[in-house]
Parts: sequence; structure tokens; C-alpha cells
Amino acid sequence: MENKGITSREDFSQWYNDIVIKAGLAEHSEVRGCMIIKPYGYAIWEKMQAILDKKFKETGHENAYFPLLIPKSYLSKEADHIEGFAKECAVVTHYRLKTSEDGTGVVVDPDAKLEEELIIRPTSETIIWNTFRGWVQSYRDLPLLINQWCNVMRWEMRTRLFLRTSEFLWQEGHTAHALESEALEETEKMLDVYADFSEKFMAIPVIKGLKTPTERFAGAVETYCIEGLMQDGKALQMGTSHFLGQNFAKAFDVKFATKEGKLEHVWASSWGVSTRLMGALVMAHSDDSGLVLPPQLAPYPVVIVPIYKGEEQLAEINEVAFEIKSKLEAKGIEVKYDNRDTHKPGWKFADYELKGVPVRLALGKRDLENGTIEVARRDTKEKTTVERATIDKYVDDLLKEIQQNLFDKALDFRKNNLQKIDDFDEFKKVMKEGKGMVSAHWDGTAETEQKIKEQTKATIRCIPLDVIDEDGECILTKKPSKRRVIFAKAY
Amino acid sequence: MENKGITSREDFSQWYNDIVIKAGLAEHSEVRGCMIIKPYGYAIWEKMQAILDKKFKETGHENAYFPLLIPKSYLSKEADHIEGFAKECAVVTHYRLKTSEDGTGVVVDPDAKLEEELIIRPTSETIIWNTFRGWVQSYRDLPLLINQWCNVMRWEMRTRLFLRTSEFLWQEGHTAHALESEALEETEKMLDVYADFSEKFMAIPVIKGLKTPTERFAGAVETYCIEGLMQDGKALQMGTSHFLGQNFAKAFDVKFATKEGKLEHVWASSWGVSTRLMGALVMAHSDDSGLVLPPQLAPYPVVIVPIYKGEEQLAEINEVAFEIKSKLEAKGIEVKYDNRDTHKPGWKFADYELKGVPVRLALGKRDLENGTIEVARRDTKEKTTVERATIDKYVDDLLKEIQQNLFDKALDFRKNNLQKIDDFDEFKKVMKEGKGMVSAHWDGTAETEQKIKEQTKATIRCIPLDVIDEDGECILTKKPSKRRVIFAKAY
Repeated sequence: MENKGITSREDFSQWYNDIVIKAGLAEHSEVRGCMIIKPYGYAIWEKMQAILDKKFKETGHENAYFPLLIPKSYLSKEADHIEGFAKECAVVTHYRLKTSEDGTGVVVDPDAKLEEELIIRPTSETIIWNTFRGWVQSYRDLPLLINQWCNVMRWEMRTRLFLRTSEFLWQEGHTAHALESEALEETEKMLDVYADFSEKFMAIPVIKGLKTPTERFAGAVETYCIEGLMQDGKALQMGTSHFLGQNFAKAFDVKFATKEGKLEHVWASSWGVSTRLMGALVMAHSDDSGLVLPPQLAPYPVVIVPIYKGEEQLAEINEVAFEIKSKLEAKGIEVKYDNRDTHKPGWKFADYELKGVPVRLALGKRDLENGTIEVARRDTKEKTTVERATIDKYVDDLLKEIQQNLFDKALDFRKNNLQKIDDFDEFKKVMKEGKGMVSAHWDGTAETEQKIKEQTKATIRCIPLDVIDEDGECILTKKPSKRRVIFAKAY
Repeated sequence: MENKGITSREDFSQWYNDIVIKAGLAEHSEVRGCMIIKPYGYAIWEKMQAILDKKFKETGHENAYFPLLIPKSYLSKEADHIEGFAKECAVVTHYRLKTSEDGTGVVVDPDAKLEEELIIRPTSETIIWNTFRGWVQSYRDLPLLINQWCNVMRWEMRTRLFLRTSEFLWQEGHTAHALESEALEETEKMLDVYADFSEKFMAIPVIKGLKTPTERFAGAVETYCIEGLMQDGKALQMGTSHFLGQNFAKAFDVKFATKEGKLEHVWASSWGVSTRLMGALVMAHSDDSGLVLPPQLAPYPVVIVPIYKGEEQLAEINEVAFEIKSKLEAKGIEVKYDNRDTHKPGWKFADYELKGVPVRLALGKRDLENGTIEVARRDTKEKTTVERATIDKYVDDLLKEIQQNLFDKALDFRKNNLQKIDDFDEFKKVMKEGKGMVSAHWDGTAETEQKIKEQTKATIRCIPLDVIDEDGECILTKKPSKRRVIFAKAY
């Protein structure tokens, strides 16, 4: 196997970076913490967007667009929210530049200072709730089910491509309801949408749960999350869905007239996933040879590479290759046929391996004679020779098998790396060795949560929704506990 | 006809604003110049995006994403570019807020001042060309065909929804080529994509042409544009495509090795359309009753409204309505069935008229008995009763007819409002009366262009690509001229 300069997973952090850069997913820009999402990475993000957007619309949501800039004063309106969000953010103070006195560059025009500074949105609850006040008058206007696809910015000092960047892309859903129960139902419904997406499309099993108060979204009554386990044993929060109660409705005075004519504050949810999912996708499935993509999210799940000498052979192969391409496309499978003469087959094989294309077909002179085609699958690296006549069915089945295999492998990995532990020394050992998630009893206090974090770097990822009540003792304090929670080191 | 509080077109500016607000397309935010695109408006924009994005991909382009923030110093690298773009823009100077001393709000943390200020992108040539330097080494890397969908910001003092806003949404294509001829071909190809989109989907005829040096994009060698004519006689620039020569390649030092191993600067194009198109769509087709949408861009080209008394009748009508909906959807037509019991049929009729839904079907008890359905078309406001058995074919044909009718009407309007004029007094009269576009001779100097603008408020919209050479005299100076150009007052 060729070495493409990818570090092995033993240095997980460097391995991750190598894959993101060398598979052409993203790169750093010269602007602190802001990444450039390259075409191949963006094509994966577009697949994610299309699938999620369809699901949002099927569940009754509409897209809209709200301003990038938020007046500073909005941030102070919801007391908890500001603590969590107002601090590390990009501040616009001026609206004009002018030519510098020596004429060689531009400087900020001091006369163009804004009366009130504007913040680049770190999240849009404040500006959206300020708008909802005008959109909601009566029960007829509810529920209000809005989603926005946009860029947001949270100033980060230490950044990692996709996982933690100052600017990132995401969607944020914001909904308003007449009843508390409806808002709660919505919060849980969207968590299910995210969990389904993770498992069926990203092939990553997730644990659905509730955050502890410490880890809750600033301004939420309850934060639901899905947590995935990466190959280095760290957890990654893949999506959150917040039940906001009436907090934002009260802060921004959003009331509705009930059927009976009473004025009441509405109930709210908000929920989001971001380009961080790209990082999860890389870390869950890839190997020391490069990216491994689940067929459902691959920009092209199949690539065909011709192996030929001279124009004449290429012409013959082209004919057969385009025929195969059409047959696969008729089954709804996207195919790239790479017959560029600027690169050799070996170079192409290595490149598509690095890019994680699920299935590679190779077609040479002997294949033409024998009516066969070589099929290589990326996940197991197995190769086989298949009759050309049945190639469309074969590939269609194979793609489904690969999708399932990636999920099964990730699920096995999680089963092997999620342990029930009742002894704190053992707990510490697991965390030190990076052996994954621990299901343990906790006394329910923020103080204990903090102590465990200090001693092990592990945080409570969630209180699983499917947890079974059982009597136990807190792993640290030995105080009584009614249920286990999930601990892990996390991204 | 019900008055929904829309001003008549006699006060065109107020009429426009009324439609945008009352049809639920957009509204002003409290942030200066930044609009909120509401769900119905955003759904139209999504249709536009989907059609254009498909076309971009079919012509070989890939999407990517570049940072929102641009270091101030980048703007000075291309000398002409800065004059046009660096001045009125949002400047980020700080990256942190802190709680104010009295604890009631937040203030900018003076310790968190950026070393170099960052600008919110007014357009992305500079940051993209700074990136292209790393992406292009050899002829094998060319052509590089990149597009980005994003938000941009240009500080505007006087704003109008969609037409001129500080923040707007757009796409910007940026391409790099080995040969000058290829870059020029790309520039023209994308202009054709825009013209096709305007005429076939927006139903707005456009004139393709070249901008004069005065109106050229800052940093371009040549700017191509498409110009549409609005119902008030003003022109609107609907899209531009720029041939950038080697200006940005030289400013950002982007070179490639030719097949022969020589190092050369690449050739470039950039091209874009924005949410401004939403404004064009409103102003080209709508009437005093509200929005009129071409079927190709309507979020739902068909709405069905039941007319009923009591639950039992509604149940009967529901059954038939859902059947019709399915039949239409089988033909690829999106249908909204509005059986809400919170609003009366009359209210719904008025609302869908205001929202410009191309075809409205109404279904009552008598229709059930007779096997008929009432069909109302928005463009001509004609109503007719149709056999239910053939409704799918009828509506399918009708939607095509409406699409064509809107285009024909707009083309007739332009024919009637584009005059060849050779006398300056007459020219002034046409402009004063707002009678549209004028095709006139011009001596080719910026000085004359400026004088005409001062006296008539008309600018040269373009030098049409299909102009026929003819000898003439400049309308103002009487100096010799070889061809006519298009003048108009413009948005």
C-alpha cells in the first residue's frame, strides 16, 4: 500500500488533520480560525444539507433568512443567554474605510463609528425572537416552524478544521408553540430527526440524552443531544435540540391570543447541527489510508478508472464505461468516470482511496475481452472481478452492504468501548487510556461533575433517554444515585 | 375586487414596498439596511438557487466556501478593486465583549482589539484569489471552476428591500484558466446562463451587453451584464459576468506551469446574481392586486381551496381534493391544499391573489355533484369551470400558458418602451416621463456619459452584444458614433 503521507491513527490528531487536508475537504485560511471548505468537502456538506432540509420540510418547517449582524443590546435581553454567548464574538464598530494618508493602503475611517456596535451572530435566538414578536398575534399563527441555513461566528483561540472554527456553517431551527407540550414534542421530534440522520446516512450510532444543567444551552430549560463515539475513544456532540420554555418569549415579549382571547407567552424550541458533522464523519470511519465515506454521503459513491494504452484502446473502453455509467445512473447512483489523460491509473487509484470513494471500478483491455470489470470496495479494501452484464445490480447491492457494514462496525466499536463502571480507579484508568465511554452513577450535583472533570478530563455527555432506573452509588462520592449517566472525554 | 391596502402602481415605489411586505416576501430588521427574508420570499429564492445551481454544475462548476471575513490588507492588493469596494463596508475591530461595570449590559472589551481589522466580504475576489495561489500549480489544475453561495455586505445608507440592502444573499463564481480565450468564453457562457434563467424561469426578457468603462466592475477588464426593464420604465441590472484578465492573478501571484514548463499567470472570470432578482421578479410582473409569479418560480404554482359547510361536507371535499392533488403531483406540479378551518374561503382567495399563486382551484358542494372544479388564473384573473376528469392535463397546460404569457407581456412592454432616438430634447422628454429605454448614439467618452447622466438621470445600461454597426452622431455632442447604446434610468 502506498504511503500518501498520512500519519497513522496512533497520532489521532495529526491523522485527522492529514485526512481533512489531503482528501481535499478543507484548509485553514489566513483569517484566524476561519476555514476554507474545499469543493470535495463542500459536496459532502451539500449532501448532508439536502437530506436534512428535506426532512425539515417533511416535518412542516419553512426556511427563512435573518440578519448576520445583531445589535449588542439584544444580547443582554435574555439573562442566561448572554453568559453563554455574548463574550467571544466578532464586533463590528465601523462602517467605512478610507485611503491612508500616504496613499498606500486603507485605514478605518474614525468618522464612521457606529452608535451601537453590532455582533456577528454566534446563534440567532435574539434576532429571531425579536422578529417573532411581529409574526405572532393569535393561535392561528402557531405553531411557527422556522429553519435557517447560515454562517455563524464564535471567536475561538484554538481551532481545528470542522471541529472548532471561528466561522462555521449550520442550520438553526426556531419554533414557537401555543402549548408547552407541543414545544417539548417538537424538541424531541427534531432530536429524532438528527439521530436518524446520524445512523442512517452518516452510519454513526448515537446515544440520545439530556444534558446536565452545567452543559445546557444558555437560555434553555432543557437541552437534548446526540453523542457519537470517535475512534480515539472521545465523544462528539453531533447535534442539540433545546426546549426553551417561555424564556425567549418573555425576554422579547412574544405573546399570542388564545382561542378564548387570553394573552399568553408562547413556548419555544431551537435545534441545530453544523459543519462539525464533517469532523465526526472523518473520525468515525476513516483509516490509515485516508477517508472512508458512507455511500449515502459520498459526492460520487462510484468511480470508474480506465486502464489503457493509446487512444484506440481508450476509445473502446470509453464506450463500455459510459454504458456502465448510464446503467448505474438509471438506478440513481452517481458515478464519476475519470478518463483524464493527465494522470496515470495508479495515481487515480491512490487518490480515490484517499478520498474515500466507496466503490472503484477498473476497466482494462482484458476486461473488455472477458466481459468483466474489477470492483474494489473502500471499506474492506477487497477486490473482485464481476460479470459486466450484472454490474448494476452488483454495485447497487454492494453500496447498501458498505453503508450497513460501516454502521455495524461503528456500533461494534461503541459496544466494545462503552462500559458500566462502578469503581473510580477503574474509571480513571479508562479515561487515561482513552478507552471510550463509561456508564456510571452520579449523585446529581454540579460539584461532583466538576470534580470528576478535574480528575479525569471526562464530562457527563448525557443522561440517556433510554436509561433504566436502578439504585446505585455515585462513582465519586458514593452518595445514592437513581440512574447511570454517560461520561467521556469529548471534542 | 378587494382592496388589500396595496397602493396602485402610480406610486411605484410604495406599490413595490406594499407587495414585498404584504405578500410576505421580506421585511426590514432593526439592523440598518439588513432585511429579513420571510418564508414565502425565501421559498422563491430557493427555487432560483436550485435552478441556477443545477445549471452551474452542468457547466462543470463546483461549490466551495470561503471565509466571511477578509483582512483589510487584502483589499489594497488590486489597485482598481479597492476604489470600488473597500470603502463602504462593515469593519470588525474587536473579538470580545464583557459585562459592563454596572452589570446591566455588555460593552466591547478594549483588550480584545484585533491587530489587523477584518472586513465583512463585500465580494470575495481577494480572499479567493489569495487561496487560488495554493490550488494552482500546473496546467493540470486548470480550469478551476468554483462557485460560492453566501451572504455579503456593502454598507448602504438608503436601502430598499431586495433592491439595495446592506446584507444580501448571492452566488459568486470565480474561475481560473490557462488561456485568455477560455476565460473570455467562460465569461460569456455564464452571461448566457443568466440570460436563459431570466427569460425561461423569471419570464423577464433581457438585453445582453457590455458595460462602459465607467460602469465596469472594479478590477475587471470587461463587464458583461443583462438588463431588464421594469414596469415603471426603469432598467434593472439582473446579473453581471466579468472578464478579469490577469489582474487578480498578478495581484495575488497565481501562476501555473504550462505543458512546456513555462510559468504564466492565469486568466480569470467572476460572475454573480443576488437576491436583487427577487426585486426584479416583483417589479416585472405584479399588478395592483399583488404579486404575480411565473409558475416556474412559484413555491406552489397551484392552490386548492375547499368551500364547505360543516365537517361532513369538508370530509367529502377532502377526499376529492387529495385525489386531484395527487394527480397534479404525479405530473411534477407542486400543490398546496389549504383546508384550514381558521380562515374563510374569501380570505384565502384574497391571500393567494396577493401572494401571486398562478392557479387557484376552488371546490364546493356543487362541484362534487357536477364532477367539476373552478379554475382561476392569477395573470389574467380569468375564471372557468373544468371537468374534474381532465383537470391534471388542463392545469399542466395552463401553467405553461401562464409562464409564456408573462414573458410575452413583458417582451411587448419592452418593445413598446425601447425607442431609437436621435434628438436630445426627445431623449430628455422620454427620461422625464419615465418611458423606458432609449437606443441612441454616443461618442464613446466618459465625459459625455457623465453629462447625459447629469441632465437626464439616465446612464448607459450597456452596449448590446447584438448591436449592428451604423454611422451616426452622438445624441449630445453630435460627434461621430459607430453604434447605438442603451440608455435608461436604473435601479
